[in-house]
This record gives sequence, C-alpha cells and structure tokens, in this order.
Amino acid sequence: MKNKIEFSSDYNEGAHPRLMEKLVETNMLQTFGYGLDPYCGEATDIIRNLCGNKNVDVHFIVGGTLTNLISICASLRPHQAVFSPENGHIHTMETGSIEATGHKILTIPSKEGKITAEQIDEAYGEYFCNEGRVHLAQPKMVYITHPTEYGTLYKKSELQAIANVCRERGLFLFVDGARLGYGMTAEGSDFDLKFLTECCDIFYIGGAKQGALFGEAVVVKNKYIAEDFRQVIKQRGGLLSKGRLLGIQFSELFKDGLYFAIAKHANNMADMIRQSLKRAGFDFFVENTTNLLFPIMPDRLHEELSKTYNMTYLKRWDNTSSVIRIATSWATTETNVKSLISDIERLCAPKLKQSA
Amino acid sequence: MKNKIEFSSDYNEGAHPRLMEKLVETNMLQTFGYGLDPYCGEATDIIRNLCGNKNVDVHFIVGGTLTNLISICASLRPHQAVFSPENGHIHTMETGSIEATGHKILTIPSKEGKITAEQIDEAYGEYFCNEGRVHLAQPKMVYITHPTEYGTLYKKSELQAIANVCRERGLFLFVDGARLGYGMTAEGSDFDLKFLTECCDIFYIGGAKQGALFGEAVVVKNKYIAEDFRQVIKQRGGLLSKGRLLGIQFSELFKDGLYFAIAKHANNMADMIRQSLKRAGFDFFVENTTNLLFPIMPDRLHEELSKTYNMTYLKRWDNTSSVIRIATSWATTETNVKSLISDIERLCAPKLKQSA
Amino acid sequence: MKNKIEFSSDYNEGAHPRLMEKLVETNMLQTFGYGLDPYCGEATDIIRNLCGNKNVDVHFIVGGTLTNLISICASLRPHQAVFSPENGHIHTMETGSIEATGHKILTIPSKEGKITAEQIDEAYGEYFCNEGRVHLAQPKMVYITHPTEYGTLYKKSELQAIANVCRERGLFLFVDGARLGYGMTAEGSDFDLKFLTECCDIFYIGGAKQGALFGEAVVVKNKYIAEDFRQVIKQRGGLLSKGRLLGIQFSELFKDGLYFAIAKHANNMADMIRQSLKRAGFDFFVENTTNLLFPIMPDRLHEELSKTYNMTYLKRWDNTSSVIRIATSWATTETNVKSLISDIERLCAPKLKQSA
Amino acid sequence: MKNKIEFSSDYNEGAHPRLMEKLVETNMLQTFGYGLDPYCGEATDIIRNLCGNKNVDVHFIVGGTLTNLISICASLRPHQAVFSPENGHIHTMETGSIEATGHKILTIPSKEGKITAEQIDEAYGEYFCNEGRVHLAQPKMVYITHPTEYGTLYKKSELQAIANVCRERGLFLFVDGARLGYGMTAEGSDFDLKFLTECCDIFYIGGAKQGALFGEAVVVKNKYIAEDFRQVIKQRGGLLSKGRLLGIQFSELFKDGLYFAIAKHANNMADMIRQSLKRAGFDFFVENTTNLLFPIMPDRLHEELSKTYNMTYLKRWDNTSSVIRIATSWATTETNVKSLISDIERLCAPKLKQSA
Repeated sequence: MKNKIEFSSDYNEGAHPRLMEKLVETNMLQTFGYGLDPYCGEATDIIRNLCGNKNVDVHFIVGGTLTNLISICASLRPHQAVFSPENGHIHTMETGSIEATGHKILTIPSKEGKITAEQIDEAYGEYFCNEGRVHLAQPKMVYITHPTEYGTLYKKSELQAIANVCRERGLFLFVDGARLGYGMTAEGSDFDLKFLTECCDIFYIGGAKQGALFGEAVVVKNKYIAEDFRQVIKQRGGLLSKGRLLGIQFSELFKDGLYFAIAKHANNMADMIRQSLKRAGFDFFVENTTNLLFPIMPDRLHEELSKTYNMTYLKRWDNTSSVIRIATSWATTETNVKSLISDIERLCAPKLKQSA
Repeated sequence: MKNKIEFSSDYNEGAHPRLMEKLVETNMLQTFGYGLDPYCGEATDIIRNLCGNKNVDVHFIVGGTLTNLISICASLRPHQAVFSPENGHIHTMETGSIEATGHKILTIPSKEGKITAEQIDEAYGEYFCNEGRVHLAQPKMVYITHPTEYGTLYKKSELQAIANVCRERGLFLFVDGARLGYGMTAEGSDFDLKFLTECCDIFYIGGAKQGALFGEAVVVKNKYIAEDFRQVIKQRGGLLSKGRLLGIQFSELFKDGLYFAIAKHANNMADMIRQSLKRAGFDFFVENTTNLLFPIMPDRLHEELSKTYNMTYLKRWDNTSSVIRIATSWATTETNVKSLISDIERLCAPKLKQSA
Repeated sequence: MKNKIEFSSDYNEGAHPRLMEKLVETNMLQTFGYGLDPYCGEATDIIRNLCGNKNVDVHFIVGGTLTNLISICASLRPHQAVFSPENGHIHTMETGSIEATGHKILTIPSKEGKITAEQIDEAYGEYFCNEGRVHLAQPKMVYITHPTEYGTLYKKSELQAIANVCRERGLFLFVDGARLGYGMTAEGSDFDLKFLTECCDIFYIGGAKQGALFGEAVVVKNKYIAEDFRQVIKQRGGLLSKGRLLGIQFSELFKDGLYFAIAKHANNMADMIRQSLKRAGFDFFVENTTNLLFPIMPDRLHEELSKTYNMTYLKRWDNTSSVIRIATSWATTETNVKSLISDIERLCAPKLKQSA
Repeated sequence: MKNKIEFSSDYNEGAHPRLMEKLVETNMLQTFGYGLDPYCGEATDIIRNLCGNKNVDVHFIVGGTLTNLISICASLRPHQAVFSPENGHIHTMETGSIEATGHKILTIPSKEGKITAEQIDEAYGEYFCNEGRVHLAQPKMVYITHPTEYGTLYKKSELQAIANVCRERGLFLFVDGARLGYGMTAEGSDFDLKFLTECCDIFYIGGAKQGALFGEAVVVKNKYIAEDFRQVIKQRGGLLSKGRLLGIQFSELFKDGLYFAIAKHANNMADMIRQSLKRAGFDFFVENTTNLLFPIMPDRLHEELSKTYNMTYLKRWDNTSSVIRIATSWATTETNVKSLISDIERLCAPKLKQSA
C-alpha cells in the first residue's frame, strides 16, 4: 500500500518545505508557551491585515474538529443549536463532537454541499413561528464550509445573502475554511478574506490541508463570541503548549502569499486531471473548480487505477460504476498527475476511440 | 523578554534535533492519515515492548489536556467521578476540562503532590458506607501524576499499594505521565514502564515536555476503556490528521533510549542548580530529584536573577521571600546552568561567607 | 379560551379521581424519601409481576423528557449514539435534551411514525462497513415509541424482528411508552407487557398522559444499564424527594387494571369521533386505532369547530384543508364526544347529503 | 421502621391539606399544559408582588436539583464556574449534577454553612490576578443557600455585602431557597423577599420542603439569564406537562401568607426541642434559629431515642457522642414534639439532676 501514489486526501504529506525550514531554524529558540510568543503575534498581525480588520481576534488551534467544536460551543447557550448542511463535516465526519458539547445540529438539505439564504430563512421561520418552540432547540448559528465537502463554492452574492439573513434573524455565521485557500484561488471564486470577514461572525483558515503540519487559524469578529475564547480553547484541549509552532507556520504561509500560491497549484493539478477525465467522457457527481474531483468511474477502471493510485471510494452510482473522490494538494507533483492522466488515457483508449 | 534565558518551563524550545531531522527526512513521503501509518505502527510496537505487554493499545494524542479528558471520559459512566490530588493538574490547570465532559473531580488532600493508598481507601470507604450515596457522585477512577506537579516520585511500594486498593475497590488507575521520563530517570526512582503497566489501567508517556514538538502516547491496558477509544479521541478533537507526525517522533524518542537519556540530562542540569542553591543555604518548598526545583528564595535575589532569567513565581512564603519554580528540560544547556549558578553564587556571596 | 372543550392533548386534566383519593388518604403519613418507601415497593412488585420478570428494576421518574434523557445517557458511552425515527419525540419535541447529555441522535426515515427491523439493520450495516467509522458516532441504542407519535402500533412480529436485529447488532432496545396503555388496549394490539419486557433492554410505562398527575415507570432489564441507574436519575434531577407520590399513583393505576380500563375508554371515545369523521367523508393523514386522530379537515370546518373545541393544528395539507390532531384521554367524557360529533354532523350536513 | 415518628427531614409527609383540597377541587378542569395556564399566571402575579418587582420572570420547576442545575447552566458560558460553600448542596448532595452540565464548582471554605463577601472577593481576586488564568475555570456565579445546610442565616448586611462584591466583580448571585420560608420566619431574620430580589440575579422559593407536594418557584431578575429560560427548563426535563399543579400549589401557599405561617410553626416546633436539649445540657454543633437542629448527642441517648424516632446521624463527635440532625417541618405536630421532649427529659433525668 505504501508505494502507491496518493490522491486520497490533501493531508498525505508533511508540511511545505519552507515551513519545515522555518521550524528547524527556530527550533532551539526559547519562547513562552500557549501562543503568547512573537511568532503568533506576527501571524496574527498578517492575518488581521489580510482580513482588513484590526479588531478581529486570531487564535491558532491544533486541529479542525477542535476548531469546529470550540467555535460552536463558545457561541451557544445550552438550548441553542447550529444549522448545518446535511452533509456538513460537523454532522457526518466528527463522531458526534458537536453533540458532545451539548448542542444539537439542525440539518438543512444541501445541493452539491451548499445551502441557500432562503433555506436558512425558511428553517428559522418555521422555528420562530412555532407556538410550541419551547420544545425545540433554538437555531442560533449557521455553519457552512467554503469550499464545501464537494469542492463547490459560494458566490459572493450567495454569501452576502446568507450573511443578511443571519443578521436579520440574529444568527451567528460561522464558515469552516479547512480548505479556504483552495476555494479562494479557484476559477469562479469572487471574494477575498476581507469580504469573508465582513460577512462572518467567526471563521477559520485551514492549515493542515494546505501546507502546514497541522493547525487552523480562527478569526473571531463577534465580540460576544470573542470574550474569553482562549479559555474555551484551553478547556477543550486546543491550546498548544508550544503554541509558536502554529505562529511560525502561519506566518510563513501568509507572509508573501505562499498559502494562495500553493493552493492555486493544487487547483491546477486537479484541473489537469479533470480535463483528462472529461476527455475520456466521464461525468462528475458534482462539478467544481477546486482540488477535489468526484468522477463517476467504471468499477473496472477504478480497480485498475487502484493498483497504482489511492483514491477514495465514495459510493455506488450504478451496477458498473461508482463515485470516486480524487484529491490533489499543495504537494501534488505534476509527475504524478501526468502519470495518472496517462494511465487514464491508456485504459480508456477504446472508449476514447469509440467516442471519436 | 525574548533575550532572557528560560528556566520557566520544560516546553520553551521546539523538539530534539534528531526528531526534527526525522520529520524533515520523511516530510514528503505519502501516508494514510489518523495514525494508520507505518510510523505509528512502529512506535506502538516499541512502546508495547518497553511496557512488556503486547496486548496494550497505544494511541498518540495531540496534547496533555486532551489526553487527560479523553482518558477520563472514555472510562466513566455519567454518574462517575475521578479522585485527584487537590493540586492535580486536571483540577487546577485545565480550565474545568474534566467537568466539561460531565464528570466531577473528587479531591484528596495531597502531601508534596502525592496521595496515598490509605487516603484513597478511606475516601472510597466514606462514599461506599454512606447510605445516602445515591446523592453522591460515584468514585470510579484514581488520577495521579508521576512525577507529581512538585516533581516528587511515587515509590514502587506506594504505587503497588495504590494499585491494590484500586483493584479491591473497583477503581481504574490512571497515571498522568506528562513528565514520566524525568521521573523514571531520577535518583530514587525504583520502577520502570513494565511495572507501571502492571499497576495501571491506563497511563500516558509525555512527549511535549520531553523532546517532542507535541504529543502524548497513551497506553490502555483495561479492555473496557480500550474499546472504541479511537472514536472518543476523534470526538474530542485529539486525532491528528497527519498522525504520522506523532508516530515519527515517538519512534525516534524510544528506539534507542533517547527519551530517557535526554530526561536524565535535564535531571542532571537541575541537580547542578539544586546543589548550588543548597550551598547558598536556601531551603526548598519541596525536596525532589527531578527537573523542577522549588527553592524558597529571597525576593531581592529573585528580582536580581529575573533580569537575566525567566523562572516561575509560585507563591509568597514570608515577608521577604517566595516559592520559585525553576525548570530544566532536555534542551537546557550546561552553559546556561553554569551562568545561573555563577550568578547565584555571586549574588549570595555575602550569605555564603556568613555561613562559612 | 378557558371555556372551550379540550381535545388538544391527553394531559389537560389532573389525575384519575381514584389516585387523588389515595393521595389525600395517605397525605399525612410519614415515609422516607427518594422512592425508598413502601408504596414504591408495592408498585414495583405489581409491575414486575405484569412484566413476568422478577429481576427487572423499576424506577419512577418525574417526567417523560427526563425519562428519555436518563435512559439514554445511562446506556451510552461518550461516542455512542441512538437511532430514532425522524419524527421521534426525542428528536423533534425535547429542545435538544439528548444532545445536551452529549449524544447524537441518528435519524431513520419513518413511515407513519414507525421504523422497521430492516431499516435498523441497514443503517447499522452502513456504519459498521464504513472503514472510516472512527469519524462516525457509533449507533448503540434504538429508540422507538409504542404507540408512535402518530398513534400507530408495532405488531408483535415487527417488534420481535426489531429486537432480533438489536441483539445481533449489539444494540440496546429502548421503547418510549409514554402512551403505552392506549397502545396495548387498542384494536389490533397483539402483545402485552410480558412480551415487551422480553424484547426490550429498557422501556417505560407512561403515567402523566394516562391518569396520573405526573410520572413514568421505567423498567430496566439490561444489567449494564441497570447498574447505579438511581444515581443517574438523581444526577439529572429526576429523583423526587417525596417519591412515594409516584409509588402511590402507580400502585393504584396497576393494582386492578385501572390503567388499562381507562386507556380503553380513551380509545373508545376516539373511535366514536373517528367513525363520525369517516361518515362525514374525511380522510386521515394516518390511520390508527388509538387515542390520537389525524383527520384532514377543511379549514372552514376547523375554524368553526375551534369556536367550541381546542384541537391541535399540525400542518397544512392543501389550499383549503389541514392535518388536525384530536386527542382523547382517560378523562374524556362521552358528553363532550357526543357534542363534538353532533357539531361535526351538523356542519357537514350538506356534504353528508351530497355523498348520500 | 414505618411506625416511628419522623424527625429525619422536612419532606416526610405529602402537602399541606389546603393544597390537597385545591388540587382535588381543580382536578377535572381542563387547562393548557407546560405552565401556560391561569393558575401559574396567578401564582406568578402573587410572587412578583411579594418580590416588589413586576419585571422578574417566575418559573415553576419540578424539583430542587433540577432548579439548581437549570439556573446554573442557563447562566454560564462553557468555561465559567460557580463559587459554592464547600458544604453547598450542589457540591455535596446532588451526584455531580452541576458538573454533568459541564461546569466546575469552585469551593470556598464555609463557617456554619456560610461564606462571606470578603472570601468571595479574595477568591475572585486570586483568579483575576493570576496571569495564567487561561488555565483556570472562570468564576462567574456565586451560589449560596438561605438558610444554609446548617440552618444558619445570612444577615441583611452580609447579603448586601455579597451582592455588592458580585456586582463589582461581574458575578451573578444565585440564592438557593429550598427552605427559604423557614429562614425568613426565623428569629433573627432581618430581610424579606423584596430585599432578596434586589440582591439576587436569580433565586428560588422552595415548595417541596415547605408544604407543597413538590416544586420550586424560580425568580429570575437578570435579563441575560432570563432569556429563553423556559427552553433550558424544558431541555433539562424540568417543565411539567401538567404545569398547573405547580401554579395551584404556589398560589395557595402564597395567597394569604400560608407559606410563612406554616414555616413559622416549624420553627416554633424546633425551638421547643432546642430549649429542651439545652435544658438537658447538650451542646450544638451549630447554633441556629430555624427548623434543623444539630445537637451533639451521647450515643446511648441517640440509640434509645431511635427506638421511637427517626433522626439523621451526621457524624461522629467523639468516642461517646455524635452530631445528630433533627428536622421539623410545616407538618410536625406538637404532640410528637412533646413526646420527644418528654423522652429526652426522662432519659436525661440523671444528667439534669446532676447539673441542678
């Protein structure tokens, strides 16, 4: 298994070499712990600047599940709940971590991983107009991911509409940006960190899937949520003793645009594969422009490719084909991509000919 | 502040250089995530071997607070509680993290950070003999640290006695070994990992304070606790996506005794300072043989030393002196130690003369 | 509003007069608290006898939401979850109470409030066969209601099949019997308390909706769940200080079949209304034989009836009609039922004629 | 055991006969559930009036443990904790119910059950001045009982001082009044409900121990805590379906001073016993003027009395005597009190003579 080429996820490698160099370079320096070091300070300044808001708080948390559960439980009173797309990461992939903090997830049907302002407004309205709402968990936050689990993007206008509904309904808006860089550098992306900051009460910028060893940078704009946020991080185990490791990595990622450059690279690699699959005539379960591809692939082809490559089986499509997830990352090499493309073309040659 | 020499904690630096080299060397290799990689496998095998028990489960968790809260909440039913020394880390330094999982901490008065088998037996007896115990949280686990928060050690016979009481009373024994290496290599230490494994239901071997960037290795012997332990780790956010980072570090630390060698070094460094302080005539709040020193220091001396060194102020002793904590670590250099000793001797010269 | 005749729920009145007499009669007697009194003892014996199992534990809990949350949290480890029909009371009507104990509810699509053994098996299978199940909450319990929220019944064979799947899959079976009496005395009901006890790990017999002032009797057969169950009741606030109030009521309800007799009365009253509505030509959202009716009613009729009667608006059916819930109970008088029927017939006379 | 005369607690009987009459009288009336009935409305108005504040919210909750846990968890964010006297009911008698909602209890040493404004100020100051307070649970609420577990009273000036510290430190003040009536009618009591309302953010008036079958009336003044409080009550299972049972009882208790009259009676009964014990020369573990007595009693006397009376053994005092708790209540008869006194005098006759 070890020798196969990985397209199964965006965390198959370590960190971008520039981060490793920086970690080695600073390794024996002495600093205070728990994020009270100059590197975290520097990273905070850079991120505040990119967000166009000097008043936001920036915290660095060890991992994504922790970031989700901390952000949500720091925001809600006991009876309050969070809206999530029904395929949201917090609902489907985190072992009930949100519920373990005491809060219910209220799901909203999603289309290609996305939900709309109208859906949120309607779901909130149903709650609000229910005379028996004392028996219902109270929606107080909206959780979405950008890009989504399916690699799709919210348009600026869609996000603005969601932010508007949230403001009108008194809901906090929380954007999970575990793959934010891949989203912001994708074709069709039409907003930046400044706009995201304007829309959200709280969001985070993922590191682990985009060049860091680990870690996520949470941006907290809402003052109610921001108060004592560090204590909630500590309570849930998200405060790294050697906090500088996160400061060093995020400084390096953001100081000259490395973060976006390597995300763009991943998108480019994905696009090469996407075009190849399209040429070979395959449909996609979801169309997108980011680093996750969801081709509907004949089982025989998947089986053949699996001798050389690791991809993720998602679900059965029909008797002879399945939905497969192919992921590229900042670390994906053009060599590996070309190898995959060449194998696809070779194996699909008859089909390609047929369609010619 | 940055230029001061640190004796404030054992996590002021990064990782032991050999670990950094290994992380750099493996950086671009591709592996599966979440601890299902060959490095975690290798580290598990090494640790099982050192524990003399092939049947224990070994898990690598991102941080100490997480390890404590996961180990405790995975073990207890809702009405159950954990005994802890009243100065236990879970009670005094983790922002209510155990209570946040729903469980009460029942404190036992500690002497120099330690509690005894007799105390545990008596406390459990009081619970058990109370006819109204339906109104009481049920003690089900004993949490102790080795070495303790005060750097003191349990003797083999003391640990055995505690393990016996736990077995008789149906209590799980959980040892927090965040500084286990410093304890096991200290003068007067009389047991090894094999004995610890025999005594405990669950314990952990600290990495972050002993040469790793971060991470703790939990050893779970009790089969009830062990079941689905990984799901509890994930639920609480302790499962690292790039789990191999922990496997690589723990493999390197344990493969040829590096862990114990660098812990011994820290103890030696501490002992040089200890002897110097004794020569200068200072008493200690607690006597111990590990890497944390607790001298009772005149405020004027502390003030003077603080211009060059960071130490931790613990509490006031009398009108003119305080309890100070001095920590050495795997990374403490002899140069810095000699500098500190020389400053102590210089500043205490009159006193030294006086006592001569 | 106060002078309207109530058909809105089965808890609009106090308790059956015989229970009130007994409470008055015993009012000044002195007993121990917290359920350790002779009345709770007597009620326990009677219930054990009806269940055909002397080894079950019986506990009396103040209310239904408490009974649900206590039964579930006493059964599950932190990472475990409970399957529930998507319209299950715990999912839709209890303000997130289960999640507040830390556990996720995994919903299964329900038909007329019911789920099947096949659905449970498939849902568990999907979990079990998922290689990434460390990221999923683990199903460990099945929650169903009998009768369901829609007043429908599980057949003996259906319940047996569910119990079989639970046993094979290692799932606890928990039956919410808040309206159990109405179910067991309904036409088409084909099992008794003995059979229910054989099938379940834990279930409860509702009091508040069936003749008591308040209170539910939980029957715990599974020994793992049963251990220290009283402590969990106390911890969650469900242990009544004057516990005998529950013992007195349940003794009286069960000592000579009062419970079933008054439930049967409610079903009879419901059936009179049901037949009347059928004669008037109305369809039902769900067909059932218990005390809750779900007619699809023209809005004009509902409006007219609402001047005299309280019913529950459930949801819109089409432009001119809605689903209405009509509830009878142990306390419903034939006079009120006849009054309602007569009003229905009067108001629907043209329609009745039309169809004649 | 059943035939002994009870002095073991203040909940050995049912309800005051006037309440039973009212419950019987209203038994078959139909009302809405969940506290939205005219009786709860009436009781709310009466209590608001007694509190001298039309803007407070009043809620009726099934039991004391529920009231404590709901009041506390509705007030705190996840990292926040509650100060309690070390013998506080929430810390020692509720099976870890507060921790089960996720919050730590921070204990303050108590003298005769009481804590002082100075202690609270000092404890908060220690937290606030700790530079490492990110590692500490944040005190945000003060919990005290009036009268205390030892039947002692806060003076008006002491309560005012505590309220002042709470205001300065941003702490909520929560008074557990499970026995409030016994306190407010005791000799030496110098404040009323109006003053209590001025001082507190939230408090409750106990029913179960003072004439009701069950139930506590919570008065919520603080607007932050008050918001959606009913949803938290429901979520934790404290919202009675037949909520009117609480409204009826509290209306009856408060409409013409019954509550205070019967509490005064209990205090008088206690005082008769107190004087008798003093005449017999016994010391008290704690001196107080309310309905709980804590004599230090020779074991032989206790043993002898125990043949006829139930009292509560509290703890050993010395080799030959123990601290015993004797409780009177609204239901204690003068006949039983005289019987006890006469037995004390008879059994202590030699001692009485000796001292004469």
